[in-house]
Amino acid sequence: MEYILPVDKHNEIVIGAYTTRGYTQVEAEQVAHFCQSASWHGIRTHNAIKALHLDHLFGTGADPAGSTPGATIDKRPSKFEAVQAWNANNKIGQSVAADAFDACMKMADKYGVGIVAVDSAFHYLWGGGYVIDVANKGYIAYTNCTATLAEVVPFGGKYPTCGTNPHSWAFPTTKAIGFPVVVDWATSTIAMGKVQSLKREGQSLPPNCAIDENGEPTTDPDKVFALLPFGAHKGYGLSLLDELYAALTGGSLPTIRYHADLGGDGEKRSTCQFFQAIHPEAISSGAFACGRNQMENVKAVIEDILGHGNAPPDGRAILPGQIEYEASVRSEKAGGLIITDAERTAFKEVADEGGVEFDPDSLASA
Amino acid sequence: MEYILPVDKHNEIVIGAYTTRGYTQVEAEQVAHFCQSASWHGIRTHNAIKALHLDHLFGTGADPAGSTPGATIDKRPSKFEAVQAWNANNKIGQSVAADAFDACMKMADKYGVGIVAVDSAFHYLWGGGYVIDVANKGYIAYTNCTATLAEVVPFGGKYPTCGTNPHSWAFPTTKAIGFPVVVDWATSTIAMGKVQSLKREGQSLPPNCAIDENGEPTTDPDKVFALLPFGAHKGYGLSLLDELYAALTGGSLPTIRYHADLGGDGEKRSTCQFFQAIHPEAISSGAFACGRNQMENVKAVIEDILGHGNAPPDGRAILPGQIEYEASVRSEKAGGLIITDAERTAFKEVADEGGVEFDPDSLASA
Repeated sequence: MEYILPVDKHNEIVIGAYTTRGYTQVEAEQVAHFCQSASWHGIRTHNAIKALHLDHLFGTGADPAGSTPGATIDKRPSKFEAVQAWNANNKIGQSVAADAFDACMKMADKYGVGIVAVDSAFHYLWGGGYVIDVANKGYIAYTNCTATLAEVVPFGGKYPTCGTNPHSWAFPTTKAIGFPVVVDWATSTIAMGKVQSLKREGQSLPPNCAIDENGEPTTDPDKVFALLPFGAHKGYGLSLLDELYAALTGGSLPTIRYHADLGGDGEKRSTCQFFQAIHPEAISSGAFACGRNQMENVKAVIEDILGHGNAPPDGRAILPGQIEYEASVRSEKAGGLIITDAERTAFKEVADEGGVEFDPDSLASA
Repeated sequence: MEYILPVDKHNEIVIGAYTTRGYTQVEAEQVAHFCQSASWHGIRTHNAIKALHLDHLFGTGADPAGSTPGATIDKRPSKFEAVQAWNANNKIGQSVAADAFDACMKMADKYGVGIVAVDSAFHYLWGGGYVIDVANKGYIAYTNCTATLAEVVPFGGKYPTCGTNPHSWAFPTTKAIGFPVVVDWATSTIAMGKVQSLKREGQSLPPNCAIDENGEPTTDPDKVFALLPFGAHKGYGLSLLDELYAALTGGSLPTIRYHADLGGDGEKRSTCQFFQAIHPEAISSGAFACGRNQMENVKAVIEDILGHGNAPPDGRAILPGQIEYEASVRSEKAGGLIITDAERTAFKEVADEGGVEFDPDSLASA
């Protein structure tokens, strides 16, 4: 059974909880807007409930706190006009990410590309949400970040020293095909949350996802010691990218992140983030085949890729971003966020935390 | 048995062959320099012999020719100061890539980042070579390109409509660890060249690399109809990135690339390339833990990743780029390029093509 949570009520509930935890009204609104987008696009693993849970585990609920409500971002003075380096001073990630991409787009309007690298960042939850937003505004968007915990072994290793380090790209393809193409995933084969959910359900992991304490592959969720990167050395390389961008920005040793008890005095334990927007006009040669314009060319290329029987009904190939788009269409039709019964209960708890009136039984079923 | 080919002789042979095929002295020198770097770093699959073979198949040897010796690059006038869009007019890829990364570095010096998108490009062979060079000059380097032929099916599909579309990143880590970290691979699980070599040797493919005519997975090299992307939907997404950058730049429909007999009049059939350099100072927050400088921080992060028993002798984890680096050390020690007996014979043929004197028996053994 699914229910429709009106967007306004969702945002009121989320803003209530975040301001109760000490975040400013602006921060809480940025978080709520972002969580609304996650639920709107059907991303159940990275909605408001997950955001609050992470804040509890690693943010204002941790000792010492990993996130600082009301923190001010320091923007480092620089001679480089299309790249900025920020110290977020552990400001909440959703707020930083929104501001960072705004700065990237402004730079891209002038220089064709804009980059913001963020040091001392706190979790921004779901990279896909930001790049969808930026792509819908007309830019090629990219972000990566170092994950909170080092749960992934480098290819050939036995001990987890890399984060699940995600990458998220989105392209401004809405005028061509109705939605942005979104390539968005972690560099581990599966998430640790998935391991825990398989454990609860008494199920096995797929092969080649994790290793046990001896470094041997295991499909038993009870024996999982660390996760494997997807695609062997290729996924490991992609995970390293996030660590190296972060290390150049000011990032911490991966294995001590958010572990107050590990590492020496003077070590940092926060994550880093990297944001980039490119203006699509800037990379256009202007010379498209058959008199097409840029968007018509994108459409023709995508139709070629999904053609030849690849797409349904003959094949099963879809575009990354299509599932999120279809979820958003469903939300649009429902006139609100579609949530499960368990989420309805969880939102009631969140509403209570922030003192927001919310009657779960009042929600229409989806 | 391996032999040492002196660098000067290698370059004389390669320049001779390329100028004989009509390329200018400058183009031939750029190609030779690049092929020298490939052999120097132990990249046997993308050396001068492969370069000449590709030129024969798709370049000056094709009808119509896919590559135009002496072509002039048109740089599109643009208001965007950190991004350039070029029409390479099918100029040879090694020459274009060298010029493009020079332009990227110049822009990165001023703006922190520089991008060059290239339309109507011809094969640049080995992305890793350029990014190693740019990283050794101190920049974060990235390139991707659309591959010559569409040999890879989109995830869930049955017909090959994507190129093996590679990505190459390198980081300026030489001062930290002695060499640049290089993440460089195609988005197919294996190369079609590998399928052919397994076929010659009567061996099977590894599982999940290819499909047969019915779209079913096959390990029989005789039945391979198309390749699979690595990492399922993740590798497919990475392959799409190259197609979408290309489509926005001016790229062709993937399935008709370098097929004069396919597609309508007015279609383009060339590849596209994307180059980016970032100045590492531009993304530095300046706030590294424990008083480290930027390179010391990179070193500490890498030591953490390869520590904890991950690296030899306890584990088998290495850094991407390490194998290429070790090959370069071996070349350095040998005082030349280390080639196989078969390569020695092939270089004799190349020398004969360009009228360059070369006695294979004169080479010292490695």
